[in-house]
Parts: sequence; structure tokens; C-alpha cells
Amino acid sequence: MRTVSIGVLGAGTVGAGVLSVLQRKGDRISRSLGATIQIRGVLVRNLTKSRSDDFDNGLLTTDVERILGDASIDVVVELLGGEEPARTYIERALRAGKHVVTANKEVIAKHGYELLRIAADRGVNLFFEASVGGGIPVIRVLRRDLVVNDISQIQAIINGTTNFILSEMEAGRDYAGALKQAQALGYAEADPKNDVEAIDAAYKLAILSTLAFRTDVRPDRIHRVGITALDEKDFRYAREMGYVVKLVATARQIGDTIEANVHPTLLPAEHHLASVKGVFNAVLVDGDEVDKLVLYGRGAGAQPTSSAVLADVCAIVQDIVYGVAEPIQFPERQLEIRDFGDTEARFYLRLLVADEPGVLAQIARVLGDGGISIASCIQKEADADARVAEIVIMTHAARQSAMTDALSVIAHLSCTRQISASIRVDR
Amino acid sequence: MRTVSIGVLGAGTVGAGVLSVLQRKGDRISRSLGATIQIRGVLVRNLTKSRSDDFDNGLLTTDVERILGDASIDVVVELLGGEEPARTYIERALRAGKHVVTANKEVIAKHGYELLRIAADRGVNLFFEASVGGGIPVIRVLRRDLVVNDISQIQAIINGTTNFILSEMEAGRDYAGALKQAQALGYAEADPKNDVEAIDAAYKLAILSTLAFRTDVRPDRIHRVGITALDEKDFRYAREMGYVVKLVATARQIGDTIEANVHPTLLPAEHHLASVKGVFNAVLVDGDEVDKLVLYGRGAGAQPTSSAVLADVCAIVQDIVYGVAEPIQFPERQLEIRDFGDTEARFYLRLLVADEPGVLAQIARVLGDGGISIASCIQKEADADARVAEIVIMTHAARQSAMTDALSVIAHLSCTRQISASIRVDR
Repeated sequence: MRTVSIGVLGAGTVGAGVLSVLQRKGDRISRSLGATIQIRGVLVRNLTKSRSDDFDNGLLTTDVERILGDASIDVVVELLGGEEPARTYIERALRAGKHVVTANKEVIAKHGYELLRIAADRGVNLFFEASVGGGIPVIRVLRRDLVVNDISQIQAIINGTTNFILSEMEAGRDYAGALKQAQALGYAEADPKNDVEAIDAAYKLAILSTLAFRTDVRPDRIHRVGITALDEKDFRYAREMGYVVKLVATARQIGDTIEANVHPTLLPAEHHLASVKGVFNAVLVDGDEVDKLVLYGRGAGAQPTSSAVLADVCAIVQDIVYGVAEPIQFPERQLEIRDFGDTEARFYLRLLVADEPGVLAQIARVLGDGGISIASCIQKEADADARVAEIVIMTHAARQSAMTDALSVIAHLSCTRQISASIRVDR
Repeated sequence: MRTVSIGVLGAGTVGAGVLSVLQRKGDRISRSLGATIQIRGVLVRNLTKSRSDDFDNGLLTTDVERILGDASIDVVVELLGGEEPARTYIERALRAGKHVVTANKEVIAKHGYELLRIAADRGVNLFFEASVGGGIPVIRVLRRDLVVNDISQIQAIINGTTNFILSEMEAGRDYAGALKQAQALGYAEADPKNDVEAIDAAYKLAILSTLAFRTDVRPDRIHRVGITALDEKDFRYAREMGYVVKLVATARQIGDTIEANVHPTLLPAEHHLASVKGVFNAVLVDGDEVDKLVLYGRGAGAQPTSSAVLADVCAIVQDIVYGVAEPIQFPERQLEIRDFGDTEARFYLRLLVADEPGVLAQIARVLGDGGISIASCIQKEADADARVAEIVIMTHAARQSAMTDALSVIAHLSCTRQISASIRVDR
């Protein structure tokens, strides 16, 4: 039986998960592949850290050369995370003719195109199923199963941390309390910026849109709005109107342009993504042949991510046994990516205004001047002592730039006390 | 550029869909594959039937030898449906060294094992993604993406016709009216037996369980209960208790045994399958690494099914270009399949009984004698004139055989007018 040797970069949560699965199930995996997977080295930062019994400590090394420089290693599994040195290691492994499996969304989103070019030149595979949606096999579904589809839209909840926080806020917690809870449970980092400012989700959306629309979408072209300014009150009002608030990564093709952004979004309660709770992820793809396809599952965690990493490893082992590498499809066209200001949406607005006659008329006039029409409007709460009233407005579809302009005019009206919320609404 | 020649058996809904996609998107598909797909022949029953403009009538033939006997054809796409002559044609194609793609759940469920053996002997592929779940890529996900998972359970809504009928009944229609509506919309056949008696769903569950549990599960070992005896009243009562009624195909591993059956099931309203409406399908897989994974989409129809058929064709074209065939994993163990009577479930019962003292005590005693304990019991409606009362009972988990025995005793009690419903309840 052929033996395929792998080197693992990183022994954090996911790395330990991968090693644990290979330890527990190596025999069965070998039988089904007709090849044995042998771990030749594991790069760690600290040799003396105590580890689970699944680790063979003799494999640990702090010297990356023992993996990248070992000609007997066929496959490098990169699980370090972060841009550097991960990107450099991946490039070196590919140039050395090794196949690479990575869970690194940042590297793939920013440098995937260049790295795939190197892989194609060297005739090796660069697989990254675990980079988006943890255990959800969305990459392979886009690459293989939907190959004859023209995809018009992707809507996705692809950050479990923020979805957990928003689920808690839906249950009445405030943002700070929900974040603290997420940190206590290990779902959020001490510095939660990457998640709550939608940086992580933007990386993942860049990868999904590049595959779905067969055009190069880099993360710096994706407009993102985080969840830090959300108020639990808006979850309540949204629910009264039949909506939930989610951090949605959306990409759609409109004519020859692509719209791709991540922001808090009001979704109708019956939307496929509306019932995605806690740390779960889901991706909704609209294909012209397949129609709506939804994939739902755990978007993070050692075991689901290991499941995806090892599915990639097994696919590569198969290819090695057969002496082939899968062809890489490069973006075959360059579609323009729309500026966020040029995109359209319906809007949910919540304003604190002076509780006096004519105020609503003033606001409606500003919106109307910007070509924005009001679909519904409710005065929610009035504080008689403070002489302020709270109004909630749902608009018809309007350009983002028109709304941004209108809100800056409204902010300067003498009757306006505060623009408390402005959230896009999607179908 | 390499040309791969295909022959298509059948030009019904799906066959026409496949030809239409190739017509519309052949160029783009060729570019992404690095190979051209050429249709060499299409087997039809009737040459003179009028067809859409997508058909090149010169390709049509009523003589299967023109496809099976044409050595230049690399891939046969079988879209005839039904057991024969489809099975024979598939076998002949494989023996002639042709790769085969089929959407035929009956042939794969009954004869898949033997046909895969022939494919393995001949070094060709036999792919059947479209046989289960239409456009939902559940076969490839089980075969490739979940390869390192031990799967404990599959729950699936895999028959769109019955799910449409049940969705209509949930909205208040009776069975006959819902079936008529399904027939009017083309979702149900004039003779709906295959769907409403769960024969179709049992074929699909046999295929899914064989892959998921790596053991041979034939459709005749799957116990099935159809939907023809369901009463719309039970949908209302179920909703009051927080449940929906679905035709669920369930397979689970319990110790070294497999339980696999299809029957109407009360699912909690918050269950992942509870919100699957109309003709949509969904498959929920529980894997030990990946945890819960749900795939949702269109389970039938020309376009979604063509999407899956052509994903298989494209995968084969890729393999042909590289000169390989994918290895076939055969069931590596034979797990015992439990008799339906030995399976356990909670039960929802609805009984018409004499409206007189002591009746509930009699029924409770019969259930208790069978070791079945009552979780809740409500007297729903009483008809004072007819002196009958309707009672609805929810039990704790009990063996199917114990329930069957208890119901036959209850049926013979003098107070019993009718056992109106007995439906299993799942989580």
C-alpha cells in the first residue's frame, strides 16, 4: 500500500483536531483510500507545552525547514492562521512541489490567485475547503457540484462568533453582554475585532464570490459594516415587523457587475438564513439550474474544521495514488465590483426626534428629495418629559449613496436628536 | 482539445434538461474542463414527437445499439427511469468499458452493488448524484466531504411530491384535494403510488444509508408507511402541540445495527426539516466530526436534476482527460438491519372512543400493560349526540411491536370506535 507523508504547520485547536482524527481513524481512512497517511512532522511554537496523548512528541518541531525542506513530505497542511508567515510557507511548499491544504481564509482571500498560479505551474493541488464555513463543504460544492450553474447570488452567515452574539441580542442581551458571553464560551477572542468588524466574513465572502462568479474578488473590494453599533432595541422592533437581524455576507451579479458586501441585515423571519442560530453557519446559493441551495452546519471548531481539512487531504492522497493533480479554474473574466454607494437596498431607520408637530414631514421631505420613498413609518415611543419621540421608518429600495446623503442632511435638522439605527433590509 | 463523446438514454424531462444545458452552456463548460463534450446519440421512444429547438433531431434514435454499440461513445447518461430496461443498458454500457451517469434511484438502490462491481472490474465510473435529492449534492458530500466521519444518523425529506401534499394539508386541505392539486401542478403522477406509498423515498434512503453506514442496505429491508391515511386534523393537533407532520426517511446506527425506515413523522417545529416546504428536499446528516450538516434544495425538476447529472458528467470528463477512474468504496462490513417492530419511537395517537366514564383508564391500562407510558393526553372534541369523544395521546418512547400489539388490543375494546391515527414522533 502506498504511503503518503504529510507535514502539519500548527498544532492549535484545528491542528490538534486533525492529528486526533488521524490517530483515531487512520486505519479506516487508509482502507478506504488504498493508501496510508503518515505524519512526518508537526510545526509548533513551543516544544514543551503539554499536549493531549494523541500527539507523538517525536514529530514536533519548531523548525519549519524540517517540514518544508523534507523531500519525502508530499502534502503540507497549513493551520497556522494569519497572513504571515503562513503565506510564505504555503508558497515555499508549492514551489517545492508539495500539495497544500490550508484552512487559512486570510491568505486564500488575499493571495489565493497568485498561490493557485504557482500550484498550477508545479502541477500540485492547493485545497482550502476549511477556509470558509468550517465543516460545511461549500468550496467543493461551488467548484464541482454547481459547475454548470451561473450563480446569481450568494447570501451567507459565515461568522459564527457574530451570529452567536446576534442570537444573544435577539434574546434580549445588549451587545457588551453578548460579547462577554461569547468570550466566556471561547467563541470570541479577547480582541474580537476580526469577527465583530466583519473582517473575517469579508475574507470568506471574497473566496466564495471569486469561485461563484469566476472573477477575482479581493477582500479590500468588499464593503463591510460590523455589528458593534447594533442596539438590542432594533432586534425587538425588527421582530415586530417580521424580521431578524443577521450579519449577512452577500454577493450578487447584476448585469456585468458584482456587488459584494457584509453588513448587519434585516432578513424576513421566513428567510432560509433567519433561523440560523448561535455559532452555526449557512450559505444560500442561487444557481440558474439548481435554483436555491442551502448548506448549513458548524462553521468553526476543531472537529468540523478537521473534517473539511481531512476531506481535502484524502482527495489529494487519491490524486497522488493516481498520479494526477486537479485542474485549477482561474477567473475567466474580470467583472467590475460596484462601489457600496451604488448598491441598492431597502432601509430600516430608527431616529430620535423632537416630539413636536411637523417633524415627520421634515424627515419625509429630506428622504423624498433623495428619491427615497417610505414604505412604512411608526412612532415607537415618546418620552414626554424629554420631549423626544422615536420613529422607525422602513423605506422602499434606494441607493446606498442617496441614503447616506439623506442621513447626513437629517442629522443636521434641528428636530433630530439622534440617528439611532440605519440597517439594510434584504429578501 | 480532447473531445469526450456521450450518449443519452431517454429524452424525457431530465434528458431534455441535460441537452438544453449542454446546448446553452457547452462552450463555457468546455473551457472550464479543457475538453469538449459531444453528444453522439439520444435514445428516444418516438422519433416524430415534437421537441424543443434545443434538439438536433439527427442525434435521435430508437435503437439502443446505436449508443451501446458505438465504441466512440465514452460516457452513457441513463435517464430512462424504472428498473428495466435501464438496469440492463447500464450493465451493458459498463461491460463495454463506458462510464455511466444515471439518475435512476430504483436501479441504484436495487442493483447498485453489483453494477459498481462491474464498473470497478472495468475501471470505469458509475456516478449517480441525481438519484437522490435532485440538485442537492448529497451523494458527493457523503462520498468525499464526510469521508473521515462516522455517521450516526440521517434524517431526510427526499420526496418532493409527498412534501408538497403534506404542506398543502398543513394549510388545511384534505389528502384527496392536496393530491389533486399536486397532480394539476405536475408534481404527482396520474398513478401516485410510487410517491405516496413511500416507495421512491425508500429507494433513496437505501442509497443514502449504504453510503453513510458503509454497509449494504437494500430497499426491501426498509420499512415504509405512506401518507395516504393521514388526516388534516392531525396536522392541526400536531401544530397545537408544537409539531409538524412530514414524511421522513430516517436511518441510524444503534450499536452494530442499522435502523432504516420511511414513515409520516411528527417533528418538533424547530427541527431543521420542519420548515422544508412544498417540493423542496433536505437531508440532515449527523457526523461525529462535522456534527449536524443540512443540505437543502430542489429534489426534482429538469434543471436541478440536470445540474447534478452534468456535475457527474463533468467529473467523468475530467477523469477521462487524466486517464483515471475514481476508486469505488464498497461496503466494508455487514451491519444487521433491525426489524421495524424492534425500533423505538414516541407515538402520537388519536382515538375515537365512547364518551363514558372509565374509558381513558381502560386505554391507559392496555398501554401500560405493553410497557408504554403516556407523556400527555388531551380530550379534543366530544360529540354529545353520538356519545363519542376524541382523545389524543402522546407517549414516551416505546417499541414499535409493543405499540402495534397494544393498538390491536385497543381496537377490540368495546369502548373503542376508531383508531384514527398512530404516527411516530421524532426529535
